Amino acid sequence: MQNFIFENPTRILFGKGQIKRIGTEARRYGTKVLLVCGSGSIKRNGVYNQVMASLGEAGIAVVDFPGARSNPVLSHVRMGIDLARQEGTDVVLAVGGGSVIDTAKAIAAGVPAECDVWDFFLRKSAIKRALPILTVVTVSASASEMNPAAVITNEDGARKYSIRDMAVQPKVSVLDPTVLFSLDKAYSAYSAVDIIAHMLEGYFTNTATASDLQDGMVEALMHSVMESTGTILREPENYEARATLMWSAVLGFNGLTTAGMGIVGFPMHMVEHALSALYDIAHGAGLSIVMPAWMTWAARRNPARFARLARRVFHVEATDDAEAAREGIESLRKWFVAIGSPVTLAEGKIPEGGIDAIAENAFALAQVWGLKEYSKEVITEILSMCR
Amino acid sequence: MQNFIFENPTRILFGKGQIKRIGTEARRYGTKVLLVCGSGSIKRNGVYNQVMASLGEAGIAVVDFPGARSNPVLSHVRMGIDLARQEGTDVVLAVGGGSVIDTAKAIAAGVPAECDVWDFFLRKSAIKRALPILTVVTVSASASEMNPAAVITNEDGARKYSIRDMAVQPKVSVLDPTVLFSLDKAYSAYSAVDIIAHMLEGYFTNTATASDLQDGMVEALMHSVMESTGTILREPENYEARATLMWSAVLGFNGLTTAGMGIVGFPMHMVEHALSALYDIAHGAGLSIVMPAWMTWAARRNPARFARLARRVFHVEATDDAEAAREGIESLRKWFVAIGSPVTLAEGKIPEGGIDAIAENAFALAQVWGLKEYSKEVITEILSMCR
Repeated sequence: MQNFIFENPTRILFGKGQIKRIGTEARRYGTKVLLVCGSGSIKRNGVYNQVMASLGEAGIAVVDFPGARSNPVLSHVRMGIDLARQEGTDVVLAVGGGSVIDTAKAIAAGVPAECDVWDFFLRKSAIKRALPILTVVTVSASASEMNPAAVITNEDGARKYSIRDMAVQPKVSVLDPTVLFSLDKAYSAYSAVDIIAHMLEGYFTNTATASDLQDGMVEALMHSVMESTGTILREPENYEARATLMWSAVLGFNGLTTAGMGIVGFPMHMVEHALSALYDIAHGAGLSIVMPAWMTWAARRNPARFARLARRVFHVEATDDAEAAREGIESLRKWFVAIGSPVTLAEGKIPEGGIDAIAENAFALAQVWGLKEYSKEVITEILSMCR
Repeated sequence: MQNFIFENPTRILFGKGQIKRIGTEARRYGTKVLLVCGSGSIKRNGVYNQVMASLGEAGIAVVDFPGARSNPVLSHVRMGIDLARQEGTDVVLAVGGGSVIDTAKAIAAGVPAECDVWDFFLRKSAIKRALPILTVVTVSASASEMNPAAVITNEDGARKYSIRDMAVQPKVSVLDPTVLFSLDKAYSAYSAVDIIAHMLEGYFTNTATASDLQDGMVEALMHSVMESTGTILREPENYEARATLMWSAVLGFNGLTTAGMGIVGFPMHMVEHALSALYDIAHGAGLSIVMPAWMTWAARRNPARFARLARRVFHVEATDDAEAAREGIESLRKWFVAIGSPVTLAEGKIPEGGIDAIAENAFALAQVWGLKEYSKEVITEILSMCR
């Protein structure tokens, strides 16, 4: 186990009916919120009204800032920063999924900043402070509601980059599983893929420091995610299954499963970010295309890790590690197919001719993230296995 | 899954060499610490000197308050409150295990209180504020370093009672597994018993809301605890095993495994508190006596839960739940024997004639904790199975 610092102060309010508390919680941090949201689903499913009622009761003024989209973009973040400054909001409230929360984080960091907000993503400047952030979660996958990270795409150069700083860790997040009842099958499946990807990035990185404790937690969480996803696709309004997935999403990427694992690389995310930066595919859908290919590539170097996953999660019985790894990866790929998430570039409507540009884009990110073994050639090799 | 609030802001610094940071961390909260510790082991193993050097470098004044003992007592807490008030310390630093940390928490709550500190334990008054608490952990079991609970024994009536309030949640805890190298075999074993007991109290309570997610985490943690304890007893200086146990102790009782499980009862702890209040036996040793008896008693009512544990953790193959439960409990009892923790009252040097007084004492606590099904007769029945 490597040395680590674990600190995760976000206050989680979990369960049916918790949204009504958001006003009281927000009131501890300010009196005028910038309400960041997406394109309207929260108005259709009633969440917006619940949030507004609670804020109103707490005497909080609201400045609406809708329009955050899947794969959120820098230009929209800049608009939010301008609006927040102009209106003098003192709290940022995200009502949405990872894209909305990440937009809120970037805005919260940008408002008090002296530099341009993109400098934080380029790691040119450090975030010194941010407006307090609260969230009401409506899509559960990113764990952004309980972590200090955000991912934004700069349309100039299609660069999908990230920040990670305690200043943008949400103060309070409200997770009501009933909100997920209206999430469609495709996005429910993509969420599950994303949750699993987060956990496996840690599981497969830095195997020298792998510990049975961390491995066991990931395996237990993966089991719960797969089981509850199956239930959700049959019964979208199954509360227990939605609740299990919602909390698993948080536990899978709030620092818990990687504490002690050293610095976690995110090679699968690195390749996927290029896919979705260039083709605007849903993040989870991009991941289910990349993961089996990357795992096949990586298992050649270290079959034992992949064999462990195969045996513990997919009950593979092969005694040879390379064979077990292969069967495990195939089981995961088949599971992606079963839940309806794409596993080839073609299924994701990404032309093979795009591989060169995707590899170029991913390589630029690999350099920002310090993933040294990923040359453009290696990334091209992985991408050409995505079929 | 039940509704829940999860909030655990303690900053954990984990690993070799982290103690040297305690001065800088403490300096964020004050300039004069009350250093609460035990009877001298931290002087023998060098931890005291490391802490003093770090505090000195950070320019922090220190008021020593040694003498906290296993099963810490109220009279000692009161002395600490008087000393802290007299010296005007603004931070409480616990350097020790659960007993020391719990003493520090009670002192921290007592210093600014207008009522008597024991009123908090009787639930007559609510803790409004407390001095900031930091900890350097030297015995790893209670998870007190990352939770808001403390247990203190009032010698008047031998009442071993508890508090639970975010005001006494430590701000910062330093966990250096090398500190545990000098912990003897008996206390290493008792620590493991205590960690497992914490997790199983949740696992066995309120089974209506049991979730595969929480169950899976507990089972994974239990596996790690049992495996690493075996290693520690053979190789006391095995870093990985000490680290695994140290972090498992925290994860097993920092709220994580019980989030969503509803209100957790602590019947095994309730009975054990009476044992150790009256006979001053080590807490873990008391638990290994009580647990198999309580489990046997409780499994009659709900064999399925005990059968699940038996199958998942002890690989019991019996298909009948009652039989599987029985085999699982027997496996756990044998494991306690194997690690050298007592499993009968006689082994704990507790006379059978003491059962009546223990039951009386435990019954009083059951009433404070609201454990309604535990009459004196029921507790007597459980105690008479501890042989």
